[in-house]
Amino acid sequence: MTEQPATIIVDWGTTSLRASLVSALGTTLDTIETEGGIQFIRDGQFETALMTAIGNWFDQYGLLPVLAIGMITSRNGWVEVAYVDAPAGIGKLAGGTRSITLGNGAKLTFLAGLRNPAGQPFPDVMRGEETQIVGYGLEQNRTLVLPGTHSKWARIEDGRIERFQTYVTGEIFALLVKHSFIARSAVESDTIDWRAFDRGAALAGDESPTSDALLAAVFSARTGMLEGKLAPAEIHDYISGLLIGSEFRQARSVGWFRDGDTLGIVGNDGLNERYERVALLFGLTTELGPDDAAKRGILLVAEYNAGGSTSAI
Amino acid sequence: MTEQPATIIVDWGTTSLRASLVSALGTTLDTIETEGGIQFIRDGQFETALMTAIGNWFDQYGLLPVLAIGMITSRNGWVEVAYVDAPAGIGKLAGGTRSITLGNGAKLTFLAGLRNPAGQPFPDVMRGEETQIVGYGLEQNRTLVLPGTHSKWARIEDGRIERFQTYVTGEIFALLVKHSFIARSAVESDTIDWRAFDRGAALAGDESPTSDALLAAVFSARTGMLEGKLAPAEIHDYISGLLIGSEFRQARSVGWFRDGDTLGIVGNDGLNERYERVALLFGLTTELGPDDAAKRGILLVAEYNAGGSTSAI
Repeated sequence: MTEQPATIIVDWGTTSLRASLVSALGTTLDTIETEGGIQFIRDGQFETALMTAIGNWFDQYGLLPVLAIGMITSRNGWVEVAYVDAPAGIGKLAGGTRSITLGNGAKLTFLAGLRNPAGQPFPDVMRGEETQIVGYGLEQNRTLVLPGTHSKWARIEDGRIERFQTYVTGEIFALLVKHSFIARSAVESDTIDWRAFDRGAALAGDESPTSDALLAAVFSARTGMLEGKLAPAEIHDYISGLLIGSEFRQARSVGWFRDGDTLGIVGNDGLNERYERVALLFGLTTELGPDDAAKRGILLVAEYNAGGSTSAI
Repeated sequence: MTEQPATIIVDWGTTSLRASLVSALGTTLDTIETEGGIQFIRDGQFETALMTAIGNWFDQYGLLPVLAIGMITSRNGWVEVAYVDAPAGIGKLAGGTRSITLGNGAKLTFLAGLRNPAGQPFPDVMRGEETQIVGYGLEQNRTLVLPGTHSKWARIEDGRIERFQTYVTGEIFALLVKHSFIARSAVESDTIDWRAFDRGAALAGDESPTSDALLAAVFSARTGMLEGKLAPAEIHDYISGLLIGSEFRQARSVGWFRDGDTLGIVGNDGLNERYERVALLFGLTTELGPDDAAKRGILLVAEYNAGGSTSAI
């Protein structure tokens, strides 16, 4: 390979460990994925598990620095890293990291999650998504949405993540299609039915007050079938559109965007196209972030520290 | 017994069969409950199953008329009874029944469900709740709520059920506490924590736009715990209050009630006290229906037919 390994990034979650070998230019040279999530680690044997996963890279390339994100930095992980409070830019996030030295002498740095003390009714939290936001870029004042099981809306102001809010849209979708009355009648399909998706989103985006009644609108998955207006194969995408549309409607009601705004969309969990489509329906212009936003963000935070700078931003 | 059996009421659902022996005055003299729901009936052997359940009553008391409600009247049941369209009063509901004669000569009448053709985005349906509404009484122009897995809001106007709307509140609650991130951290309790319930309801009832964002508010079950503001044992009732409060907020947005209205509450699934409490929070006066509203309604519909009257109401 022409580029040399410079850093190891470890995304260590509850159910899996994913590691990337990255060059100084940010190119991913190799990856490893194991099912050794932190829930399977007994008696705090995190270092043993880490060495089993990435020890070969140390043997081949020397004592590369390791950057860790994910639930490994939580109370149930290896080292609990306190959340950094928003507003926060790269400097403040970098200041919140915690480092240890591994038995072989390599440095392992745990990145901090982000807390929004202004969240209502309680301060909100994210652990990992902040790296995606940094990787998207903090240059422009803008609202971003990060689609996911627990999607995040975040505001960038003056080079910092100003505040953010979590929506449990993806989880509600999964619950409905797996365990509810919908699960008993809907039929899964391999392709996205954009027509059905748009119908659901349009219902949520409608100007009528009916569209505010999400708890009632969900029942239209059944009444639509009873009336022969929705086919069993359309239900999943109809409900997906209805829920993402409701997320936008609710996000608008609390001021995350106005008609005509540009919305950044960043994430890599396959939902971006759905969010883009709904954003257009709500009168927004969209700008997609890079696919490797998380990696970019992690490296930017780490480089800030390596540069020896400190900052209150 | 002093009162003589006059009617047999059968509530035959997907998973169970419940039968009541009722006097001419509406007194329940005996009950039977079996797990012989319609999903367990093979090859259309409904009559055999019914005779096994209530044959003794025929032997003892003669060929009493039988009134049947529940999924037994649906497409998957014994006799599919078409929905009656709202607006509908007792006469129109009575006109929608279908009767057959059993092998022993007794008359079996299946009651109709109700359809709201004005429902948005599709006509709404109920199958059984309409008897509770009739049993509550159609004398006064009033909005009723029938708490449940799929709660119903209904409007009584001029002695008829004018229109109604279904909210899937109870099902969303069950999904969240059984299968979501909440299930992993909440602790079930034997008693209702009214303080936690009220906190959730107050969040939904708040005048701030934040309270419109239900998909975000649900996440407060996690952030409240992370911040030490909600205990694991409080989560279930907090979420219950939040969801029922959101149902009221959404019902108000589509015009089901205004501040100062009287709201009828009818149902017997243990949720009435919760709904009453939230109704007060939303500035409503409440009037609870009788516990035996369903039985009263069934008998009123049946008596209308027995009286030989017909009506377009």
